[in-house]
Amino acid sequence: MASSSTCSSSSSSHEDAWNIECFKYSRRATLRSVVGRPDGGAGLAGERAVVGGWVRSSTVVRARRASAVSPGSSSPSRTKPEGNVQTTGLTCTEVLMSRVPLIRCIARLMAGGIGAAAGAASGGSARRQAIGKALVRINDGSCVADLQIVVDSSLCPLDQVTATGACVLVEGKIEQVEGTAPQYVVQMRVEKILHIGPVDSEKYPLSNALPSSDLIRSYPHLAARTEAVASIARVRSELIHAVHAFFQSNGFFHVNTPIITTTSAGNRSKMFRLTGLFSKSDNDIRITPEAVRAAIKEKTKQIEALKRSESNKEALEAAEQDLQRAKALSRQLEQSTESSPDDLFHCPAYLTPCHTLHLETFACALSSVYTFSPAFQAEILDSDRSLAERWTLDDAISCTEDCVKSLCSTVSKDCSDELKFLSSSQAGDATNSLIGSAVSSPWEKIKYTEAVNTLLQVTDKTFESKLEWGMPLSHEHLSYLADDVYKKPLIIYEYPKQLKPFYARLKEDFKTVSAFDLVVPKVGIVACGAQKEERMDNLTSRIEESGLQIEQLEWYLDTRRHGTVKHSGFSIDLERLILFVTGLKDVQDTNPFCRTKDHAKC
Amino acid sequence: MASSSTCSSSSSSHEDAWNIECFKYSRRATLRSVVGRPDGGAGLAGERAVVGGWVRSSTVVRARRASAVSPGSSSPSRTKPEGNVQTTGLTCTEVLMSRVPLIRCIARLMAGGIGAAAGAASGGSARRQAIGKALVRINDGSCVADLQIVVDSSLCPLDQVTATGACVLVEGKIEQVEGTAPQYVVQMRVEKILHIGPVDSEKYPLSNALPSSDLIRSYPHLAARTEAVASIARVRSELIHAVHAFFQSNGFFHVNTPIITTTSAGNRSKMFRLTGLFSKSDNDIRITPEAVRAAIKEKTKQIEALKRSESNKEALEAAEQDLQRAKALSRQLEQSTESSPDDLFHCPAYLTPCHTLHLETFACALSSVYTFSPAFQAEILDSDRSLAERWTLDDAISCTEDCVKSLCSTVSKDCSDELKFLSSSQAGDATNSLIGSAVSSPWEKIKYTEAVNTLLQVTDKTFESKLEWGMPLSHEHLSYLADDVYKKPLIIYEYPKQLKPFYARLKEDFKTVSAFDLVVPKVGIVACGAQKEERMDNLTSRIEESGLQIEQLEWYLDTRRHGTVKHSGFSIDLERLILFVTGLKDVQDTNPFCRTKDHAKC
Repeated sequence: MASSSTCSSSSSSHEDAWNIECFKYSRRATLRSVVGRPDGGAGLAGERAVVGGWVRSSTVVRARRASAVSPGSSSPSRTKPEGNVQTTGLTCTEVLMSRVPLIRCIARLMAGGIGAAAGAASGGSARRQAIGKALVRINDGSCVADLQIVVDSSLCPLDQVTATGACVLVEGKIEQVEGTAPQYVVQMRVEKILHIGPVDSEKYPLSNALPSSDLIRSYPHLAARTEAVASIARVRSELIHAVHAFFQSNGFFHVNTPIITTTSAGNRSKMFRLTGLFSKSDNDIRITPEAVRAAIKEKTKQIEALKRSESNKEALEAAEQDLQRAKALSRQLEQSTESSPDDLFHCPAYLTPCHTLHLETFACALSSVYTFSPAFQAEILDSDRSLAERWTLDDAISCTEDCVKSLCSTVSKDCSDELKFLSSSQAGDATNSLIGSAVSSPWEKIKYTEAVNTLLQVTDKTFESKLEWGMPLSHEHLSYLADDVYKKPLIIYEYPKQLKPFYARLKEDFKTVSAFDLVVPKVGIVACGAQKEERMDNLTSRIEESGLQIEQLEWYLDTRRHGTVKHSGFSIDLERLILFVTGLKDVQDTNPFCRTKDHAKC
Repeated sequence: MASSSTCSSSSSSHEDAWNIECFKYSRRATLRSVVGRPDGGAGLAGERAVVGGWVRSSTVVRARRASAVSPGSSSPSRTKPEGNVQTTGLTCTEVLMSRVPLIRCIARLMAGGIGAAAGAASGGSARRQAIGKALVRINDGSCVADLQIVVDSSLCPLDQVTATGACVLVEGKIEQVEGTAPQYVVQMRVEKILHIGPVDSEKYPLSNALPSSDLIRSYPHLAARTEAVASIARVRSELIHAVHAFFQSNGFFHVNTPIITTTSAGNRSKMFRLTGLFSKSDNDIRITPEAVRAAIKEKTKQIEALKRSESNKEALEAAEQDLQRAKALSRQLEQSTESSPDDLFHCPAYLTPCHTLHLETFACALSSVYTFSPAFQAEILDSDRSLAERWTLDDAISCTEDCVKSLCSTVSKDCSDELKFLSSSQAGDATNSLIGSAVSSPWEKIKYTEAVNTLLQVTDKTFESKLEWGMPLSHEHLSYLADDVYKKPLIIYEYPKQLKPFYARLKEDFKTVSAFDLVVPKVGIVACGAQKEERMDNLTSRIEESGLQIEQLEWYLDTRRHGTVKHSGFSIDLERLILFVTGLKDVQDTNPFCRTKDHAKC
């Protein structure tokens, strides 16, 4: 399928052909198709295009005789960079100031203080009269690189297009930038302003060119306008596509497992429970059990008073009848309140913390299946996982290894700019080399028992958490193994049964199960899997051992009762995989909306 | 990426090369790669393979001298179909019985009644001694076609492999079937049984070869073993892949919008509300507000009694202190009960009924984005939707048309067997021709006002629901337009503002908004979209008109405050699109777990 078509601007009066590929549905060239090209856009010099985006940073330059070009005139296809300024995101104004004393004065006048250094010409009515041109770096979220557009003050009041966060849609000509190591290969000389979405710099929370992480986290709905969050979003998108590509090319069917479930496979204290319809307790005029109880109390008092006074027998009888009615209503209300939360489900309903059980029912019919669904835990919010079903533990391990390697390799190839940007703002390029070795070399595979023995023999480090066979490996244990001992992705398998869910297949020793974790350096566990217990008797005794209610799992046991099959599966934690490929430290940064706090906001 | 590798069975003792492509991770050939080939498997005759699946139906045939072949012997690569039986799913036993009186007696003896007709040889210990061979049709869910395997009674007790629903994994040789119009091109002569997952026919709920829809619906966890549900699952999988392919090839980024939200864009009565941690209300010992209130009541009575008797001042004082304490506790508890359900969110949290608002925040940063997430309504359960963001209404309509056409075209090409199967068990091939014309011809586009005028002039039909300008179009109205008037997919646009959400862009007439619905024949609305209101004043007044709390939408308004941009979007209802492409009638059939009742089960 063709990914884009050649532009023809319906709103433009220009009749000449447009040679820049643009988005089919918005008649606008993405910045990826201009500055995202391998030549940085050099091959497009002289071409006309419509581009748009949000202002990242900007500089206002007084028109100088040598480079003053009025819009619409046939601008030279190669020009000196405007004002010959090294326009980096943060320091542009400072560089200008150090060179041109006059501009320094103007900038001081206009910026009104250090805080507005990056958006020097933005905001304030006194600045409307700025004459000259604005060098505005815009980004439309399609790639890491910004495009510099040159806007003459005859086109619009410059403060409208220079405020960080403003949205601009412009038409103009691409021209190559010359000079000693200019930051940009090309820039656009704007000929027509098609749209301005203004911004009030005083109020725009991300008007600082490099907002702090804490600030970004406070505004999840604007966060994707920062390069860091946008880069992560593009890596995430690429990873998700790669997940589907991997499974589809290996013959897996995508199925949808339910998100609302009445079954729990583990600890219910970590599950979200759903209540019924909101309207019952919110919008309607309510007769609450409490109100009725208060009425009963009142009526009881009244009856006691009437009894004491003995003044009016009829009034007493009426009051007693009222009391009976109120009591009946109270009983009724108590019952309806108890049943209403789950009226749609007939029993308590939860958000699923795990898709494994339902996915197995599809695997026991369609053979090779996967799902890509959010899983919910009441502590850590949603975390997308893809799960697949295979025959044996070895198959599952080999499929996990192929899958994760394929995902890493796709992302490091197709998102190299994003990874470069993220590692430059993080821990250097250590991450990239970690991915490289993860993709190219075979992984280490050790049994849980070996892992414990290795850790017990460690003398150069003391661990905080105690360890003996049968106890879980803590994060520091896993980190020591992956970061210090093996220095690469590590599969740990054959865990003691008490450390894994009831459905993991019991081994012949009756102590361990066929389950594994994939541990990667710096992050920890990014995937886990198990061969599923297909033997009915083992399964039921494991369910009982785990303290789960077997009646709730009867439907699951049906898949073993009726044509049981050896199968295994694994799940990948997408958020942690993003940490691994990007080098990010905090799982809360992988998606702007996936943070506990933010749910309170949006 | 290579989709599969040539088989090498690790457990097999055969050293010769295997020429049938098989699943990389299960070392088993899928039936799609054998009987799903265009030649029905003819080119594979003589090849050895491992296949598996669940038994769909079976027949036991007494060994006859001419065709008796012991396992392991070099069987001829072309053989007569076993017993020369027309083995259709339901009637195999009947056909046999009409032809071979001896077999009729045996079958009666073994079947024990009409009910077990299809799985004639299944179940019961008395049947273990059956000598001869079983013709077993198995299916592994990878394609519509079954594979017939021939199992000799020397390999295993035949009742184990003939019970409908049993799981078998076998190794053997593919051989071509000859004869007058044999139902199968090839069958497999089994040489080795690798695994049997037995089934008790008495207890297996789907042991009848053609279970009723109601029966299937009662067992969502086994439903995918029926051909109908498996076909729908494969169509769904293909559709989902096509959705991702369409958006990816058109430069859209996939983003994850939250499923848990505190914002409501419309009617809260249709939203699921989340409560906090289960443990608080379930496992812990609770001091409820009710219990405290009862204590207060008791204490109040006691005080009254003490006052009346005036016997003990100290007792009265103590009781009054108790009462104060209880009241304080009550206040405290009321507060904590109000806040605890939402302790993680600080305010009421819901499952999102719509991803539009959050998706817009990404569109206002990354330009072209889509999501593929379940949306929740408390009436109809989850319904997957994909949403995309574009610039204007025309762009959104054109993108919707391209997208739906691309999905229909992919599915009709890649799932032709499934669609054929489903239409044969439904409304003939009318569905396929509907898809054909939907893909090939341009769609009708009319304004809401035109639609109402057309409907008001209808004389050959009376509608149940009243209609005048400003009222919603009911299902019968939409159906009349799409099925009777235009007979093809229909875009209805420019709706009265009161019929669409607050974010739809107001037109110059201040009465209508830039919103549209895509209506397809037989199904109704499968997609809807709108150009979003980018003007702050219009947006806030529309929010107020809609009776929504503007404070809750402040975060959304931020995207208009700070660099607003013209944009539009649409969402596709995947479940209804599946109805359209498959010809299914009931949206509850599109996914076995997506039915209200079933959530109570799984």
